[in-house]
Amino acid sequence: MDLKILQNELNITIRNIPDFPKPGIQFKDITTLLNNAKVFTMLMEYLESRYKKLNLDYVAGIESRGFIFGAALATRLNIGFVPIRKKGKLPSTTVVEKYALEYGFDEVEIHIDAFMNIKNAKVLLIDDLIATGGTAEASIKLIKSIGGNCIEACFLLKLLGFDAVDRIKEYTEVFTILDV
Amino acid sequence: MDLKILQNELNITIRNIPDFPKPGIQFKDITTLLNNAKVFTMLMEYLESRYKKLNLDYVAGIESRGFIFGAALATRLNIGFVPIRKKGKLPSTTVVEKYALEYGFDEVEIHIDAFMNIKNAKVLLIDDLIATGGTAEASIKLIKSIGGNCIEACFLLKLLGFDAVDRIKEYTEVFTILDV
Repeated sequence: MDLKILQNELNITIRNIPDFPKPGIQFKDITTLLNNAKVFTMLMEYLESRYKKLNLDYVAGIESRGFIFGAALATRLNIGFVPIRKKGKLPSTTVVEKYALEYGFDEVEIHIDAFMNIKNAKVLLIDDLIATGGTAEASIKLIKSIGGNCIEACFLLKLLGFDAVDRIKEYTEVFTILDV
Repeated sequence: MDLKILQNELNITIRNIPDFPKPGIQFKDITTLLNNAKVFTMLMEYLESRYKKLNLDYVAGIESRGFIFGAALATRLNIGFVPIRKKGKLPSTTVVEKYALEYGFDEVEIHIDAFMNIKNAKVLLIDDLIATGGTAEASIKLIKSIGGNCIEACFLLKLLGFDAVDRIKEYTEVFTILDV
């Protein structure tokens, strides 16, 4: 499938919500993509086709919209899915990574045994959107810290006006579908 | 595939975590199922096979572990996925449903236009686990309140010691895979 056709469909389908969650922010609402069977299927077929060549071991998705695209892609590839979660949600032993927010900081976690017995597991990181890249960078570090090989980070949307891709391309390949 | 084989594999794969998130609770950790490609694929093939006969319009998943199984099933069926979220996370106009907790209450939401223009849309509700059934009941009410027809509610795990299925079977068919 042609990437331009997919980008055009995503552009039409994803809804813009002004002033959410606070004034001045243009929120990109992907629920109108998810409930559109045609475009959701088109996106997932595109990702399946792109990633089946790489013989991945795992897809890792960032809570919680990254769970949606990550689990959908993992099951299309018949491979395992690994959740990266906000602190305190994962029940077993974890590794934690802190990252800066505009004011303060936040933390994400991964289970220390998430890649089971696969050494140097080939992992794709996925999330719906990359803005500053803080969560993405922390997530890549988590994958590496437990022995995974993050071979690409994939984001459906890239917010213009940030240097996020520069920030993480020293760690991994980066693939973004649509600039918004 | 035989349900008993699947149940046995799930039983082996899902990890029990004592005293999480608080003392006395035996937490069922489904991350060890998700990162097991063989069993995760077995589960998803079983669900795909069960639900493709029903010609569903949507799978609705409850935040956030229901997102994982729901989105994976939706993309296997090539249909739309609708997230049911904790209050305040969905950016557009929503319907809200309140439900009781042991102490206090909580709320879940759905976008009012989640089923787009499909009248009487056939919807499967999915979540990883049903305990008291409070979130499930509220979610079924949300689906109905925006014009959907919740034809079945599917839970990977049913916690023993609750009358949850009795609570929701007046609204919809209920399918649970494993008692824990």
